[in-house]
Amino acid sequence: MPMNAADRTDGEMYYEQLVPGQVYNSGSIAVTADEIKSFAARYDPQPFHLDSAAAEKSIFGGLVASGWLTASLTMRLMVKSEFKFGTGVIGLGVDSLRWPKPVRPGDTLSATVEIAGMRASESKPGFGVVKIRTTTSNQLGDVVQVMVSSVLVRRRLA
Amino acid sequence: MPMNAADRTDGEMYYEQLVPGQVYNSGSIAVTADEIKSFAARYDPQPFHLDSAAAEKSIFGGLVASGWLTASLTMRLMVKSEFKFGTGVIGLGVDSLRWPKPVRPGDTLSATVEIAGMRASESKPGFGVVKIRTTTSNQLGDVVQVMVSSVLVRRRLA
Repeated sequence: MPMNAADRTDGEMYYEQLVPGQVYNSGSIAVTADEIKSFAARYDPQPFHLDSAAAEKSIFGGLVASGWLTASLTMRLMVKSEFKFGTGVIGLGVDSLRWPKPVRPGDTLSATVEIAGMRASESKPGFGVVKIRTTTSNQLGDVVQVMVSSVLVRRRLA
Repeated sequence: MPMNAADRTDGEMYYEQLVPGQVYNSGSIAVTADEIKSFAARYDPQPFHLDSAAAEKSIFGGLVASGWLTASLTMRLMVKSEFKFGTGVIGLGVDSLRWPKPVRPGDTLSATVEIAGMRASESKPGFGVVKIRTTTSNQLGDVVQVMVSSVLVRRRLA
Protein backbone atom coordinates (compact mmCIF):
# COMPACT_ATOMS: atom_id res chain seq x y z
CA MET A 1 0.00 0.00 0.00
CA PRO A 2 1.50 3.36 -0.96
CA MET A 3 2.29 5.93 1.72
CA ASN A 4 -0.39 8.55 2.09
CA ALA A 5 0.70 12.18 2.24
CA ALA A 6 -0.70 12.20 5.78
CA ASP A 7 1.79 9.50 6.78
CA ARG A 8 4.81 11.76 6.41
CA THR A 9 7.11 11.67 9.40
CA ASP A 10 9.24 14.69 8.49
CA GLY A 11 8.88 16.22 11.91
CA GLU A 12 5.35 17.55 11.52
CA MET A 13 3.30 17.46 14.72
CA TYR A 14 0.22 15.22 14.69
CA TYR A 15 -2.85 15.30 16.89
CA GLU A 16 -2.35 11.65 17.90
CA GLN A 17 1.09 12.44 19.35
CA LEU A 18 -0.36 14.85 21.90
CA VAL A 19 -1.44 14.07 25.45
CA PRO A 20 -3.28 16.46 27.79
CA GLY A 21 -0.91 17.76 30.45
CA GLN A 22 2.16 17.35 28.22
CA VAL A 23 4.51 20.35 28.34
CA TYR A 24 6.79 21.58 25.54
CA ASN A 25 9.67 23.97 26.16
CA SER A 26 11.01 26.86 24.11
CA GLY A 27 14.44 28.41 23.86
CA SER A 28 15.00 31.89 25.27
CA ILE A 29 15.21 35.42 23.93
CA ALA A 30 16.71 38.63 25.36
CA VAL A 31 14.73 41.87 25.36
CA THR A 32 16.58 45.15 24.86
CA ALA A 33 15.53 48.76 25.49
CA ASP A 34 16.06 49.40 21.77
CA GLU A 35 13.55 46.72 20.75
CA ILE A 36 11.03 47.89 23.37
CA LYS A 37 11.24 51.46 22.03
CA SER A 38 11.26 50.64 18.32
CA PHE A 39 8.31 48.24 18.64
CA ALA A 40 6.40 50.90 20.61
CA ALA A 41 7.18 53.66 18.10
CA ARG A 42 5.34 51.68 15.42
CA TYR A 43 2.73 49.68 17.34
CA ASP A 44 2.09 51.07 20.82
CA PRO A 45 3.27 54.69 21.08
CA GLN A 46 2.64 55.32 24.78
CA PRO A 47 5.19 57.17 26.98
CA PHE A 48 6.01 54.21 29.28
CA HIS A 49 6.98 52.09 26.23
CA LEU A 50 8.80 54.83 24.30
CA ASP A 51 10.91 56.90 26.63
CA SER A 52 12.90 55.88 29.73
CA ALA A 53 12.57 59.26 31.47
CA ALA A 54 8.81 59.50 30.93
CA ALA A 55 8.45 55.85 31.98
CA GLU A 56 10.14 56.54 35.33
CA LYS A 57 7.29 58.94 36.17
CA SER A 58 4.62 56.44 35.12
CA ILE A 59 2.92 53.78 37.26
CA PHE A 60 5.51 51.30 35.92
CA GLY A 61 8.47 53.23 37.40
CA GLY A 62 10.58 52.57 34.32
CA LEU A 63 10.54 51.48 30.70
CA VAL A 64 8.32 48.42 30.05
CA ALA A 65 7.56 46.43 26.93
CA SER A 66 4.19 46.69 25.21
CA GLY A 67 2.11 43.61 26.01
CA TRP A 68 1.94 43.11 22.24
CA LEU A 69 5.73 42.90 22.08
CA THR A 70 5.62 40.27 24.85
CA ALA A 71 2.94 38.39 22.89
CA SER A 72 4.94 38.68 19.66
CA LEU A 73 8.19 37.51 21.28
CA THR A 74 6.23 34.62 22.79
CA MET A 75 5.02 33.72 19.30
CA ARG A 76 8.65 33.57 18.15
CA LEU A 77 9.49 31.32 21.11
CA MET A 78 6.45 29.12 20.24
CA VAL A 79 7.36 28.82 16.55
CA LYS A 80 10.86 27.71 17.52
CA SER A 81 9.78 25.43 20.40
CA GLU A 82 9.55 21.64 20.58
CA PHE A 83 5.84 22.03 19.76
CA LYS A 84 6.70 22.62 16.08
CA PHE A 85 4.37 25.43 15.13
CA GLY A 86 6.55 25.83 12.08
CA THR A 87 5.24 22.63 10.52
CA GLY A 88 1.57 23.37 10.14
CA VAL A 89 0.07 24.22 13.53
CA ILE A 90 -2.50 26.93 12.78
CA GLY A 91 -3.79 29.39 15.37
CA LEU A 92 -7.58 29.58 15.68
CA GLY A 93 -7.87 32.24 18.34
CA VAL A 94 -7.04 33.34 21.85
CA ASP A 95 -9.40 32.71 24.79
CA SER A 96 -7.39 34.58 27.41
CA LEU A 97 -4.26 36.71 27.47
CA ARG A 98 -2.87 38.22 30.70
CA TRP A 99 0.30 40.10 31.56
CA PRO A 100 0.80 39.61 35.34
CA LYS A 101 4.17 41.41 35.39
CA PRO A 102 5.77 43.83 32.91
CA VAL A 103 8.77 42.93 30.74
CA ARG A 104 11.73 45.28 31.24
CA PRO A 105 14.96 45.94 29.32
CA GLY A 106 17.52 43.21 29.97
CA ASP A 107 14.93 40.50 30.64
CA THR A 108 15.38 37.10 29.04
CA LEU A 109 12.13 35.34 28.21
CA SER A 110 11.31 31.68 27.72
CA ALA A 111 7.98 29.88 27.34
CA THR A 112 6.27 26.57 28.00
CA VAL A 113 3.37 25.25 25.95
CA GLU A 114 1.05 22.89 27.85
CA ILE A 115 -1.62 20.76 26.19
CA ALA A 116 -4.74 21.86 28.09
CA GLY A 117 -7.42 20.08 26.07
CA MET A 118 -8.06 18.17 22.84
CA ARG A 119 -11.03 17.38 20.63
CA ALA A 120 -11.65 16.34 17.03
CA SER A 121 -12.59 19.22 14.72
CA GLU A 122 -16.26 19.11 13.71
CA SER A 123 -15.83 21.22 10.60
CA LYS A 124 -12.45 19.85 9.46
CA PRO A 125 -12.38 16.02 9.65
CA GLY A 126 -8.61 15.75 9.14
CA PHE A 127 -7.80 18.00 12.09
CA GLY A 128 -8.01 18.23 15.84
CA VAL A 129 -8.56 21.36 17.92
CA VAL A 130 -5.99 21.57 20.68
CA LYS A 131 -6.28 24.03 23.55
CA ILE A 132 -2.87 25.15 24.77
CA ARG A 133 -1.73 27.20 27.73
CA THR A 134 1.44 29.14 26.95
CA THR A 135 3.29 30.61 29.93
CA THR A 136 6.08 33.13 29.36
CA SER A 137 8.57 33.76 32.17
CA ASN A 138 11.57 36.00 32.70
CA GLN A 139 15.04 35.01 33.91
CA LEU A 140 13.87 35.18 37.56
CA GLY A 141 11.00 32.79 36.94
CA ASP A 142 8.40 35.56 37.18
CA VAL A 143 5.46 34.90 34.88
CA VAL A 144 5.06 37.83 32.46
CA GLN A 145 2.32 36.39 30.21
CA VAL A 146 -0.24 33.61 30.33
CA MET A 147 -2.18 32.81 27.18
CA VAL A 148 -4.86 30.21 26.55
CA SER A 149 -5.42 29.65 22.85
CA SER A 150 -6.66 27.05 20.39
CA VAL A 151 -4.72 25.63 17.48
CA LEU A 152 -5.59 23.29 14.63
CA VAL A 153 -3.35 20.21 14.43
CA ARG A 154 -3.47 17.68 11.60
CA ARG A 155 -4.65 14.13 12.46
CA ARG A 156 -2.48 11.23 11.34
CA LEU A 157 -5.48 9.14 10.26
CA ALA A 158 -7.60 11.56 8.28
CA MET B 1 -12.80 75.00 46.46
CA PRO B 2 -9.51 74.25 44.70
CA MET B 3 -9.46 72.03 41.63
CA ASN B 4 -8.48 68.47 42.43
CA ALA B 5 -5.85 66.80 40.24
CA ALA B 6 -8.59 64.40 39.22
CA ASP B 7 -10.60 67.32 37.79
CA ARG B 8 -8.13 68.00 35.01
CA THR B 9 -9.79 68.32 31.64
CA ASP B 10 -6.66 68.08 29.50
CA GLY B 11 -8.16 65.45 27.25
CA GLU B 12 -7.76 62.49 29.56
CA MET B 13 -10.56 59.95 29.33
CA TYR B 14 -12.66 59.45 32.48
CA TYR B 15 -14.86 56.53 33.47
CA GLU B 16 -17.86 58.85 33.97
CA GLN B 17 -17.69 59.99 30.33
CA LEU B 18 -18.30 56.49 29.03
CA VAL B 19 -21.64 54.91 28.15
CA PRO B 20 -22.19 51.24 27.27
CA GLY B 21 -22.79 50.87 23.55
CA GLN B 22 -20.81 54.00 22.70
CA VAL B 23 -18.45 53.52 19.71
CA TYR B 24 -15.14 55.28 19.12
CA ASN B 25 -13.43 55.33 15.73
CA SER B 26 -9.79 55.13 14.74
CA GLY B 27 -7.89 56.41 11.75
CA SER B 28 -6.56 53.94 9.20
CA ILE B 29 -3.25 52.31 8.40
CA ALA B 30 -1.92 50.62 5.25
CA VAL B 31 -0.22 47.20 5.43
CA THR B 32 2.65 46.46 3.05
CA ALA B 33 4.30 43.17 2.06
CA ASP B 34 7.55 44.56 3.49
CA GLU B 35 6.05 45.08 6.95
CA ILE B 36 4.35 41.65 6.88
CA LYS B 37 7.69 39.99 6.06
CA SER B 38 9.89 41.99 8.44
CA PHE B 39 7.49 41.53 11.36
CA ALA B 40 7.37 37.79 10.63
CA ALA B 41 11.14 37.46 10.37
CA ARG B 42 11.45 38.63 13.97
CA TYR B 43 8.20 37.48 15.61
CA ASP B 44 6.40 34.80 13.61
CA PRO B 45 8.81 33.09 11.18
CA GLN B 46 6.38 30.82 9.33
CA PRO B 47 6.50 30.40 5.52
CA PHE B 48 3.06 31.94 4.81
CA HIS B 49 4.12 35.17 6.60
CA LEU B 50 7.68 35.31 5.25
CA ASP B 51 7.75 34.41 1.61
CA SER B 52 5.24 35.14 -1.15
CA ALA B 53 6.08 32.03 -3.20
CA ALA B 54 5.84 29.67 -0.22
CA ALA B 55 2.64 31.41 0.89
CA GLU B 56 0.99 30.73 -2.48
CA LYS B 57 1.31 27.00 -1.83
CA SER B 58 -0.09 27.31 1.73
CA ILE B 59 -3.73 27.11 2.82
CA PHE B 60 -3.80 30.93 2.65
CA GLY B 61 -3.04 31.01 -1.10
CA GLY B 62 -0.74 34.00 -0.69
CA LEU B 63 1.20 36.12 1.79
CA VAL B 64 -0.78 36.93 4.96
CA ALA B 65 0.07 38.98 8.04
CA SER B 66 0.80 37.31 11.37
CA GLY B 67 -2.20 37.65 13.66
CA TRP B 68 0.21 39.37 16.07
CA LEU B 69 0.96 42.01 13.45
CA THR B 70 -2.79 42.56 13.04
CA ALA B 71 -3.12 42.83 16.83
CA SER B 72 -0.15 45.22 17.04
CA LEU B 73 -1.41 47.44 14.21
CA THR B 74 -4.80 47.47 15.94
CA MET B 75 -3.07 48.65 19.13
CA ARG B 76 -1.57 51.54 17.14
CA LEU B 77 -5.02 52.40 15.78
CA MET B 78 -6.43 52.22 19.34
CA VAL B 79 -3.73 54.45 20.84
CA LYS B 80 -4.43 57.04 18.17
CA SER B 81 -8.24 56.70 18.27
CA GLU B 82 -10.87 58.97 19.82
CA PHE B 83 -10.81 56.65 22.86
CA LYS B 84 -7.54 58.27 24.04
CA PHE B 85 -5.51 55.29 25.17
CA GLY B 86 -2.55 57.63 25.10
CA THR B 87 -3.73 59.48 28.20
CA GLY B 88 -3.78 56.77 30.80
CA VAL B 89 -6.03 53.93 29.68
CA ILE B 90 -4.27 50.79 30.92
CA GLY B 91 -4.84 47.32 29.45
CA LEU B 92 -5.73 44.64 32.00
CA GLY B 93 -6.02 41.66 29.70
CA VAL B 94 -7.72 40.10 26.72
CA ASP B 95 -10.76 37.82 27.05
CA SER B 96 -11.05 36.87 23.40
CA LEU B 97 -9.07 37.49 20.22
CA ARG B 98 -10.18 36.13 16.83
CA TRP B 99 -8.93 36.60 13.28
CA PRO B 100 -11.92 35.75 11.03
CA LYS B 101 -10.07 36.74 7.81
CA PRO B 102 -6.37 37.17 7.06
CA VAL B 103 -4.73 40.55 6.42
CA ARG B 104 -2.97 40.72 3.04
CA PRO B 105 -0.46 43.13 1.48
CA GLY B 106 -2.18 46.31 0.30
CA ASP B 107 -4.94 46.14 2.89
CA THR B 108 -5.87 49.29 4.78
CA LEU B 109 -7.09 48.67 8.31
CA SER B 110 -9.27 50.73 10.64
CA ALA B 111 -10.84 49.91 13.99
CA THR B 112 -13.82 50.71 16.17
CA VAL B 113 -13.77 50.51 19.97
CA GLU B 114 -17.19 49.79 21.53
CA ILE B 115 -17.91 50.11 25.25
CA ALA B 116 -19.24 46.63 26.04
CA GLY B 117 -19.47 46.87 29.84
CA MET B 118 -18.48 48.98 32.85
CA ARG B 119 -17.97 48.43 36.57
CA ALA B 120 -16.12 50.10 39.44
CA SER B 121 -12.78 48.52 40.28
CA GLU B 122 -12.88 46.61 43.58
CA SER B 123 -9.13 46.73 44.16
CA LYS B 124 -8.49 50.27 42.85
CA PRO B 125 -11.10 52.74 44.20
CA GLY B 126 -10.09 55.55 41.83
CA PHE B 127 -10.63 53.46 38.72
CA GLY B 128 -13.27 51.70 36.70
CA VAL B 129 -12.90 48.50 34.71
CA VAL B 130 -14.25 48.92 31.19
CA LYS B 131 -14.82 46.01 28.86
CA ILE B 132 -14.28 47.00 25.24
CA ARG B 133 -14.89 45.24 21.94
CA THR B 134 -12.40 46.32 19.29
CA THR B 135 -13.24 45.39 15.71
CA THR B 136 -10.61 45.76 12.99
CA SER B 137 -11.74 45.86 9.37
CA ASN B 138 -10.08 46.11 5.99
CA GLN B 139 -10.88 48.54 3.15
CA LEU B 140 -13.69 46.24 1.91
CA GLY B 141 -15.37 46.20 5.31
CA ASP B 142 -14.30 42.59 6.00
CA VAL B 143 -13.65 42.03 9.70
CA VAL B 144 -10.07 40.81 10.18
CA GLN B 145 -9.92 40.86 13.99
CA VAL B 146 -12.35 40.98 16.91
CA MET B 147 -10.94 41.48 20.39
CA VAL B 148 -12.73 41.70 23.72
CA SER B 149 -10.49 43.16 26.41
CA SER B 150 -10.63 45.02 29.70
CA VAL B 151 -9.02 48.36 30.45
CA LEU B 152 -8.62 50.43 33.59
CA VAL B 153 -10.00 53.97 33.28
CA ARG B 154 -9.60 56.66 35.93
CA ARG B 155 -12.76 57.88 37.71
CA ARG B 156 -13.39 61.62 37.91
CA LEU B 157 -14.63 61.40 41.49
CA ALA B 158 -12.09 59.21 43.24
